[in-house]
Amino acid sequence: MYELGVVHRTIIRADPQVADGLGPLGSATVHEAQGRTGLLSPALRPIYRGQPVSGTAVTVLLHPGDNWMLHVAAEQIRPGDIVVAALTAPSSDGFFGDLLATSFQAQGARALVIDAGVRDVRTLEEIGFPVWSRHISSKGCVKATLGSVNIPVVCAGMLVTPGDVIVADDDGVVCVPRTQAAATLEKARKRESLEADKRARLASGVLGLDMYGMREPLAAAGLRYVD
Amino acid sequence: MYELGVVHRTIIRADPQVADGLGPLGSATVHEAQGRTGLLSPALRPIYRGQPVSGTAVTVLLHPGDNWMLHVAAEQIRPGDIVVAALTAPSSDGFFGDLLATSFQAQGARALVIDAGVRDVRTLEEIGFPVWSRHISSKGCVKATLGSVNIPVVCAGMLVTPGDVIVADDDGVVCVPRTQAAATLEKARKRESLEADKRARLASGVLGLDMYGMREPLAAAGLRYVD
Amino acid sequence: MYELGVVHRTIIRADPQVADGLGPLGSATVHEAQGRTGLLSPALRPIYRGQPVSGTAVTVLLHPGDNWMLHVAAEQIRPGDIVVAALTAPSSDGFFGDLLATSFQAQGARALVIDAGVRDVRTLEEIGFPVWSRHISSKGCVKATLGSVNIPVVCAGMLVTPGDVIVADDDGVVCVPRTQAAATLEKARKRESLEADKRARLASGVLGLDMYGMREPLAAAGLRYVD
Amino acid sequence: MYELGVVHRTIIRADPQVADGLGPLGSATVHEAQGRTGLLSPALRPIYRGQPVSGTAVTVLLHPGDNWMLHVAAEQIRPGDIVVAALTAPSSDGFFGDLLATSFQAQGARALVIDAGVRDVRTLEEIGFPVWSRHISSKGCVKATLGSVNIPVVCAGMLVTPGDVIVADDDGVVCVPRTQAAATLEKARKRESLEADKRARLASGVLGLDMYGMREPLAAAGLRYVD
Amino acid sequence: MYELGVVHRTIIRADPQVADGLGPLGSATVHEAQGRTGLLSPALRPIYRGQPVSGTAVTVLLHPGDNWMLHVAAEQIRPGDIVVAALTAPSSDGFFGDLLATSFQAQGARALVIDAGVRDVRTLEEIGFPVWSRHISSKGCVKATLGSVNIPVVCAGMLVTPGDVIVADDDGVVCVPRTQAAATLEKARKRESLEADKRARLASGVLGLDMYGMREPLAAAGLRYVD
Amino acid sequence: MYELGVVHRTIIRADPQVADGLGPLGSATVHEAQGRTGLLSPALRPIYRGQPVSGTAVTVLLHPGDNWMLHVAAEQIRPGDIVVAALTAPSSDGFFGDLLATSFQAQGARALVIDAGVRDVRTLEEIGFPVWSRHISSKGCVKATLGSVNIPVVCAGMLVTPGDVIVADDDGVVCVPRTQAAATLEKARKRESLEADKRARLASGVLGLDMYGMREPLAAAGLRYVD
Repeated sequence: MYELGVVHRTIIRADPQVADGLGPLGSATVHEAQGRTGLLSPALRPIYRGQPVSGTAVTVLLHPGDNWMLHVAAEQIRPGDIVVAALTAPSSDGFFGDLLATSFQAQGARALVIDAGVRDVRTLEEIGFPVWSRHISSKGCVKATLGSVNIPVVCAGMLVTPGDVIVADDDGVVCVPRTQAAATLEKARKRESLEADKRARLASGVLGLDMYGMREPLAAAGLRYVD
Repeated sequence: MYELGVVHRTIIRADPQVADGLGPLGSATVHEAQGRTGLLSPALRPIYRGQPVSGTAVTVLLHPGDNWMLHVAAEQIRPGDIVVAALTAPSSDGFFGDLLATSFQAQGARALVIDAGVRDVRTLEEIGFPVWSRHISSKGCVKATLGSVNIPVVCAGMLVTPGDVIVADDDGVVCVPRTQAAATLEKARKRESLEADKRARLASGVLGLDMYGMREPLAAAGLRYVD
Repeated sequence: MYELGVVHRTIIRADPQVADGLGPLGSATVHEAQGRTGLLSPALRPIYRGQPVSGTAVTVLLHPGDNWMLHVAAEQIRPGDIVVAALTAPSSDGFFGDLLATSFQAQGARALVIDAGVRDVRTLEEIGFPVWSRHISSKGCVKATLGSVNIPVVCAGMLVTPGDVIVADDDGVVCVPRTQAAATLEKARKRESLEADKRARLASGVLGLDMYGMREPLAAAGLRYVD
Repeated sequence: MYELGVVHRTIIRADPQVADGLGPLGSATVHEAQGRTGLLSPALRPIYRGQPVSGTAVTVLLHPGDNWMLHVAAEQIRPGDIVVAALTAPSSDGFFGDLLATSFQAQGARALVIDAGVRDVRTLEEIGFPVWSRHISSKGCVKATLGSVNIPVVCAGMLVTPGDVIVADDDGVVCVPRTQAAATLEKARKRESLEADKRARLASGVLGLDMYGMREPLAAAGLRYVD
Repeated sequence: MYELGVVHRTIIRADPQVADGLGPLGSATVHEAQGRTGLLSPALRPIYRGQPVSGTAVTVLLHPGDNWMLHVAAEQIRPGDIVVAALTAPSSDGFFGDLLATSFQAQGARALVIDAGVRDVRTLEEIGFPVWSRHISSKGCVKATLGSVNIPVVCAGMLVTPGDVIVADDDGVVCVPRTQAAATLEKARKRESLEADKRARLASGVLGLDMYGMREPLAAAGLRYVD
Repeated sequence: MYELGVVHRTIIRADPQVADGLGPLGSATVHEAQGRTGLLSPALRPIYRGQPVSGTAVTVLLHPGDNWMLHVAAEQIRPGDIVVAALTAPSSDGFFGDLLATSFQAQGARALVIDAGVRDVRTLEEIGFPVWSRHISSKGCVKATLGSVNIPVVCAGMLVTPGDVIVADDDGVVCVPRTQAAATLEKARKRESLEADKRARLASGVLGLDMYGMREPLAAAGLRYVD
C-alpha cells in the first residue's frame, strides 16, 4: 500500500562518489556484484542508446494518465539525481516530454526511469536527456490526482527507495540500495578487474571450459560427448 | 536488491481477527478502503473461482524454474497464513502442485499467491487449496539455488512484507500492510454498510447521477446534452 | 478523433425484433453471415460463460482509470440495450462492479462490453449481468474527466455506432451495423438452416472433403498424397 | 522449413495401450518422467476443464486464417488420434467449430490441440470434444492455401511428429515421442506409485525438508536462519 | 462491419496546405491540440527514426497474410498521400517491402502506416520511405482475398476515414479528421508558440509548480510536504 | 522431447559456399524461395542493425537462467558457424555478453541467435558480433543444469537441425535445411535477378496491377470500383 499525497523533502542520498563510480561499471556488472538482484524489468528500454548514467533516486508515484506529480518532483531534484517514476496501474501514455525534460535538466537531473510512456523522444535525444521507459507515446496527461514524491515505490517490478543508486545503460536499469552501494561498488570493481585478463585469454582462443575449470563439473553432472 | 539465502523465522503477523475480518469484505472494497493502492497485478488469476480468502503473508523469493525455497517456506507457515511467492525474473514454470499443496495445507496455510505458474490444478481444486497465479503449466522445477523466506518481496508489482494481510478473491489480490490492517478494516466495513442502501436505491431505478449528486459537477466540467 | 464531453440523447436503434433474433444464432454464425467482419478483438472474454445476449448498442467513451461517464450512460439506457465502453488508452482498472450493474440492470440493460477491466465478478454472475471485458481487476476508478456517450467509438478494434446490434456469447462479441441488421439476420438464418443437415452427415461419417466437394480444388492446388 | 502440399497417409502410431496408459498419469507426471521436456507452451489452454485425454498425434500445418487442411486431416484420423495443428505464423482466428468437431469425433478423434483459435466452444463442451487452443474467436476461416498433413510440425514451441503420444489435461499439453513412449510410461508409473506415500506423510505434517533430506544440502548451499 | 471488395476512387482529401502544416508541429502537439484523441496505438513504431511526415490518408483493409489490396491501393495514391493499412485480424507477416515501396514512392506516397508487419526495412531506410508498423518480419504474403480501398477503417485502434490527415513521427501516429484539420492546425500552432517561452523559463530554473500556478490546487487537493 | 546432457561433436554442415551465398540475398528473399516457411518468430530482433549474416547452425539447448551449455557449445564452433540457442521454457535473462562473444568470435562464430535475452549489447556492437534475441537484459545466469549441444532444437517456433543454414538480417532470421540449401540458393538467386527489372518499372510509375496482370483476377474475384 502506498502513502498518497505526500512529498518527502528530506531524503538520505547515497554517497555521490559511490553513485558516480557505479555508472561506468555498467548495469550487468553491478547486477552481478549484488548477487543478481536489483534489476528492473527488461521491458524498460532506453529511448536512445549510448548514454549510460548513474545517480541517486528521487521517486514519484503516478496514476495512469496523470503526470501532475512529475512537476512536484522537479522541485525535489538535486544535481546528480535520477527520477524514478512508478505507476499505480499500467499506462502507455506519454507522461514526460521536452518541457519537463528541460525543467528536470535545469534542476540537475541526469535521467528519468519511468514504468510508462514518454514523448518528444527526438528532442530528448537532441538535448541529451536519457529516459528508460516501457512505451513511447504521443498521448499527453491530465493533472488531476495526487500521487507522492520520495516514498519507496515499486518501479517495473523492483523496489526503489529514495536515495538508492540507479545504474542505467543499454542493457537495462539496476537499483542499488543506498546502504549497499559502497560494498557493491567494491565488488563490481573487483569483477571488472578480473574481466580484462579473461577477455584476453578467450580472445586468444582459450575456451571457457578450460579457463573456468568446467570440464570436471560437467562430467560429474553427466554430460556425454558423442562423435 | 534482495537479501538472498536467508530465512527469517520470526515475523510479526497482523492481528488474526483483523486478517479474518478483511476477507469477507472482498478485494475490491478493501482496495478502495486503503485509497486504491495495494493491488497486485490483475495478471494474477485464481486457478479456480469461488473460494475467497484472507490471511497473513509468509513470503518467499524464488529463482526462475527453481522451487526449492517453497519447501523451506513450508516450515515457516502458521495456521492462517497465505504464502506469497515472488520471482527474481519471469517464469511460466509450474512451481507448485498437489504434494506441496498437501504439505502447505497440513501446516495451516490457506492459499498461495505466486507470480509464476502452478500445476495439478484439478487436484488443488478437489482438495480446496486456492492459488492465485500468473500461469498454469505442467513444467516442474529444479531444487538448486537459494532464495529467501520472509523478506519483503515485490510480487506481481506490489511490495509485500511478511505479516501483511493478503485478501484474495475472484477479483484479484490485495496486500494490506500490517500496521494499516485495523484501520483499513474499519474503513472497509463503513464502505460496505453504505453500499446496501445504495444498491437498493439503484435497483429501484434511481440513477447514480442523482444519488451521487453528479449532475452539477458534470455540467461544471462542460458536459453537453444533445437531442 | 473523438468528440468529447457530449451525450447524444437521441439515437436510432436497430429494430428490437431483429436484434433479438440475431442473438440465438451466435456470434460465429452472425460473423460469417456478414462476410467475416464486425468482430471485436478476441481479447474480450466473458467474465462467466453460458449467458449469450444480443441487444442495441449504447456507447460510452472513457478515459483510463475514470468511470464517470458510465453513470452518465446509465440514464441513456433503454430496455434491450447493451452498453459498449471504449477507452482513449489501454487500462486494466475495474471500471464496473455490482453497484453499476444493479443500476444498468434496473434501466433495462442486458450486458456490458468494455475494452478494460471490471470487478465484483462473482456478484455479477449471481445477479446474471454478463460482461465481456479485457481484464478483471479490483482496482476502482475516479470520476474526474469527461468522455462522451452515444458517439461512434472504436471498442477492441471495431467501430461501434450507437444503435448497432451487439451479439455476444462464449465465442466473442460481434457488431452488426443497424442498417445491415435485417439482411444479416436473414443470411445468418439461412446459414443455420443448412448446418443441421451438414452436421448429421458429418456425424454419420461423411467427410467434409466429399460433402463440400473439396477433392478437386485440392488436387488442382497441387495437393499430393504419399503412402 | 516445412514440406508444403503433402498428405502422408501412412504413419507409425505409438502403441495404443501405451498411449492410453499415459493419459491417466497426467501431463505433469509424464513431463517429469521424460526429463522435463516435451511441454507445449502453457499459452495453450483447455477450452473447458475436466476432460483429460491421451492419444496418438495426427499433425496438420495451417496458414493463418485458412482451415482447409483440417478437412484434409479428418480423413487421416483413426480412432484414438488427437489432431495437432500448427500454424506458419500466429493467428487468433477460429479455425475449428462444431461442424469440424462433429466430423473429427465421427472419425474417432479424441481431441484437438491447436496453436490458434477455435469457436463454438459451448457446443464443443456439450458434445464432449475437448480442445486445447491459444485463443477463442468467432472469426471463421477461408479455404484457399495448401498446408500439409502428417509432417513433423512445431506446435506451440514443441516438435510433434505424427504418431507421437499427446497427453493433455487441465495443466497443459505434453508430447511423448513414439519411440520413448513405453519407457516414459514405465517411469511415470514409478513416479506415481511413490507419490501416494509421500502425500500421506506430508498430509500428516511431515515436512518436505525432512522427507526429502533437504536440510543438509540447503545448509551446504549457505542457507542462514535468522530469528 | 467493413464493406469488402470495394475501391472508392473518389475521396475528399484534406487541404494539402493544412496537411503539410500539421507535420512539423509533431504528433504530440497535434494530439494535444485536438483534445488528446486521435492517437493510433503506440504499438505502432517507426521502422527507422528521424523522418517525420504528414499527409492525407488513403486507406486499405487487408486480411491476415494477404497483401493483394496494397497493389490495388497503389493506383489510388496521389502525391502527398500516406497509405493507412488496417487488418481484419492480427497478423505479424511482412505485407510490404522494397518493391511496393518503390511503387508507392513513384505514385507520390509519403509513408505507410500499417497495423501488421513489413520487411526490407534496410532498403526502405535507404530509399527514404518511412513506415510505422507493429512488426518487422521477413514473411511475405499471398494475393488471394479481397479487402477494400478507401473505406473508413480502424487502424491500431483508431478510426481513419479516407482523406483525413495523418501526422507521424518518432512519438507515434495521429489521425486528424479532414473536417477538423484546419481548426486543429490553428490550435496546434498556438500551443507551439507558447512553448518556446515556457521552455526558456524552465531552462532558467523556474519550476513548473510556479510557472503553471500549481501550488494552490495541489494544496487544495491535500498535498502534504514532510521534512 | 529433447535429448538432455549430450554433445554431438560430429555434425554435417551445409556447404559453406552455399551458406555464404544465401546471406546477401536476405532473409525475405530466402524465405520466399523456400515456399514461405523456415522463419523464426519475428519476436527475435537484432540487437543492432546493419550486419546481415549467414552461416551454419551449431545448436544449443538451454534451461531458463542457466547459460552453462553456451560454454560447452563454444568448443564445437567451427569458422563460419552461427550459434542457435533454444530454451526449455521462456526466459528474459541475459545469457550472453562480451566475454562469451569474445570467445565465440575467437572460435570463428559469426553470430548468435537466441530465444532469450543478452547483455553487453554496446560492447557486442563495438566488436561487431551480431545477435538476434528476444530480450535485452542485464541479468546474468547460473551454470548448474545440463542441456545439450548439436541436437535438433525448436528456436523461436522453428525447428533448427545442426548444420542447417541460418540467414539473419534486419528483417529477421530464416532457417534453411541443409539438404535444401543448394536448391533454395538457386531459387533465391532467380527471384532476385527478376527483381531489379521489376523495381525499375515500378519506379518509372508502372503499377503492380498491370505489371503482375492482377486486374483480371481482381475483377474475377468481384472487386468493384466506385467513383
